[in-house]
Amino acid sequence: MTVRPSALDPAIASRLRRNDAGLFPAIAQQHDTGEVLMLGWMDDEALHRTLTTGRATYWSRSRGEYWVKGDTSGHQQWVRSVALDCDGDAVLVRVDQIGPACHTGTRNCFVADPLPTRVGDPGVTADAGPAR
Amino acid sequence: MTVRPSALDPAIASRLRRNDAGLFPAIAQQHDTGEVLMLGWMDDEALHRTLTTGRATYWSRSRGEYWVKGDTSGHQQWVRSVALDCDGDAVLVRVDQIGPACHTGTRNCFVADPLPTRVGDPGVTADAGPAR
Repeated sequence: MTVRPSALDPAIASRLRRNDAGLFPAIAQQHDTGEVLMLGWMDDEALHRTLTTGRATYWSRSRGEYWVKGDTSGHQQWVRSVALDCDGDAVLVRVDQIGPACHTGTRNCFVADPLPTRVGDPGVTADAGPAR
Repeated sequence: MTVRPSALDPAIASRLRRNDAGLFPAIAQQHDTGEVLMLGWMDDEALHRTLTTGRATYWSRSRGEYWVKGDTSGHQQWVRSVALDCDGDAVLVRVDQIGPACHTGTRNCFVADPLPTRVGDPGVTADAGPAR
């Protein structure tokens, strides 16, 4: 596994579960509306910088470098809170997003490509018994 | 790359970008409150089943099998909408979550482990110029 040197608190680092590239997914969510903005990737140092600078910072897999969201676009993510999930392999970053989050210019990265979906209806297909 | 056989629409499959295990992350979000519930993993067939059955279905990396959320716990995720992100490597599944989403019994997987964070403040540290 690739693990770059990092100043991340060892007590946090010890709880992380990373992929073979030393990365884990980070969900960025607008703190007040709940809108899911994007999914990025972090390594230990990106998480450390996110926790200590107030700016969401990712690892760019395409460029192979740290990426402080908004440094080139101006569309910063100001960090409000960060949480690790129950098994340590994903992070939720609640932010105040300046401008569009997506590099395509849309507010978030999920608006442009809705997939045709059967809507689930518990009233029709679920077991209606008391144990549900 | 591992790609299991799937009935997923080829027009969707062609837009997916998967990891070496043939998987991509799927964010589950409560459709009405915006709460981020959990992050799971899907392959093509898990996405196909999610789109066609109305029940969020993941690939369990630990068990190596499909996992229809709630089949054992009763805590189903009824699908409301599904969207692919701008570069095809993540999915947002908006659901109606029955009961707790997390296997630990909490409503979502991110409540138990908040990390100490410096809160970002654009008023203090950002460039206040007109281009921001």
